Amino acid sequence: MKKLINGVDTVLSESLDGFCAAHADIVTLGEERKFVRRATLTPGKVALVSGGGSGHEPLHAGFVGHGMLDAACPGQVFTSPTPDQMLAAAAAVEQGGGVLFIVKNYEGDVMNFEMAAEMASGEVMTVVTNDDVAVENSDFSTGRRGVAGTLIVEKVVGAAAEAGADLAACKALGDRVNARTRSMGIALTSCTVPAAGKPTFTLAEDEMEMGVGIHGEPGRRRVKLMPAAGIAAELIEAIAGDLGAEARGDAILLVNGFGGTPAMELYVMYENARAELEKRGVRIARSLVGTYVTSLEMAGCSLTVTMLDEEIARHWDAPVHTAALRWKM
Amino acid sequence: MKKLINGVDTVLSESLDGFCAAHADIVTLGEERKFVRRATLTPGKVALVSGGGSGHEPLHAGFVGHGMLDAACPGQVFTSPTPDQMLAAAAAVEQGGGVLFIVKNYEGDVMNFEMAAEMASGEVMTVVTNDDVAVENSDFSTGRRGVAGTLIVEKVVGAAAEAGADLAACKALGDRVNARTRSMGIALTSCTVPAAGKPTFTLAEDEMEMGVGIHGEPGRRRVKLMPAAGIAAELIEAIAGDLGAEARGDAILLVNGFGGTPAMELYVMYENARAELEKRGVRIARSLVGTYVTSLEMAGCSLTVTMLDEEIARHWDAPVHTAALRWKM
Repeated sequence: MKKLINGVDTVLSESLDGFCAAHADIVTLGEERKFVRRATLTPGKVALVSGGGSGHEPLHAGFVGHGMLDAACPGQVFTSPTPDQMLAAAAAVEQGGGVLFIVKNYEGDVMNFEMAAEMASGEVMTVVTNDDVAVENSDFSTGRRGVAGTLIVEKVVGAAAEAGADLAACKALGDRVNARTRSMGIALTSCTVPAAGKPTFTLAEDEMEMGVGIHGEPGRRRVKLMPAAGIAAELIEAIAGDLGAEARGDAILLVNGFGGTPAMELYVMYENARAELEKRGVRIARSLVGTYVTSLEMAGCSLTVTMLDEEIARHWDAPVHTAALRWKM
Repeated sequence: MKKLINGVDTVLSESLDGFCAAHADIVTLGEERKFVRRATLTPGKVALVSGGGSGHEPLHAGFVGHGMLDAACPGQVFTSPTPDQMLAAAAAVEQGGGVLFIVKNYEGDVMNFEMAAEMASGEVMTVVTNDDVAVENSDFSTGRRGVAGTLIVEKVVGAAAEAGADLAACKALGDRVNARTRSMGIALTSCTVPAAGKPTFTLAEDEMEMGVGIHGEPGRRRVKLMPAAGIAAELIEAIAGDLGAEARGDAILLVNGFGGTPAMELYVMYENARAELEKRGVRIARSLVGTYVTSLEMAGCSLTVTMLDEEIARHWDAPVHTAALRWKM
């Protein structure tokens, strides 16, 4: 295993310390490293709390800041954070407007966030994201997995909360964005979980995993490596097919790298995905291309499409200032 | 070779098309894809033009925009752009204030930018960056190589040009920032140039390249894989040793991923590099951690230190709005 670490037991704590030191203008590390929270909170605002297993960076801590999350709870690599972490995060950022949990649909995360919601003293609502059309159930989820579309939910609801939307409105908007969002990805290589010390799975030199999950878990099938155009066609076919009649008009296209794929290839995928969507009458009104929702150093990418309306577009365009996503401020 | 491409002949053109489509609010693609330029130019401002071989994305096209470059010329992968491209870029963005070329110190780039400077009709000056302390001469350079410190030169001089500095002042500032900047990197894996189809070099499972160049070219020596703390200590020792008595006071610390290294490890490296610098009396006043000056999908990272003064800090903090670097706007 080749990693820039001092040991498998310290990689997470050192990484969190480094992250919070490098971005001290934006974030603060919670006690016992239970959560990362905004350095400055806004009284009365709905507090947005997310989290999940580590190894998907910059998700979620990289999205803590003005216009997006108030706090994020980092679990061990690919392992849900504990209810204890979520309760501590909620208590630290609650400002009188209640707390919205944004949770990717994996059994551990959903169970722990539910437990925290029940134990919390204040008002808590939850949005569960499940944008991955690859599989209906998976190794770690009942129902579809929550993947890169979570970024879009966090951005849009974050802007609404910043603009003064109340807890019920934030919850409804989050559910609505999730319902208009679909993703699917492919892997060219595996990732290596530090504590495991070896690749999660193996792919032959001419193989890829179609529909891979963000922990390297299986997707639809293992196939021969295809050209970018063929990959884009299959992913967009799955996404647009699932959206059905809704796949008309303006959309956000997010091309997300899984960690080991360089920008040059992500833009090739963008170009091919754009052509596929436009053929179907979907106009790419907003674009985001980069390495945002990852599986450590896995090579591959996912495509995410969110069908826009005026409200979602307005919140997408609103200022955001986090470690990993910044615009208009 | 596992890459998300349609073919080795189209990877660059499709990537550039995708890049300029995804960021159409910021950049425009020049005729025959000779350069990427700002969508909006500022009359009278000194025009900053950079460029180099592709494969280092987001450098340089990702740094075109307000507060940084006016144009960037992309060569083929790891191959200098041609004087023809540089002339076309300079002509397209010259706004009456003259043109400053910012060139990484590699023989091909330096020769071609020199030729373009001689052929240009207007006034042209050049800053050559050579921040890499790993080797005094290399496979592709006479003298030290220009690496991730180039980002810092482009950011600082970009802000000065935006604030109205004239050509001679921009040139002097660029030389001064370069003189206060040192970098060194390590590789854990090789990259694969698309046209070559196989890794540029090979490293055993327990080996790393100390002082690697951003084309995967050799550095100081091949060594056994070390913990992050040991790597940070050796890189900072080389950087601080070379800065000598100047290595006191406030600095920018840039931890730069080479492409295949995830954020989690970059922040571990940041934490260890920060400790090494602080031991030496260098205070990290500004931080940047991310994948900015790459070697395709190579795993590894570089550390860059720029010693600050009031002028450099002010320009570093100034607003920037490019595809890859954005703050305060």
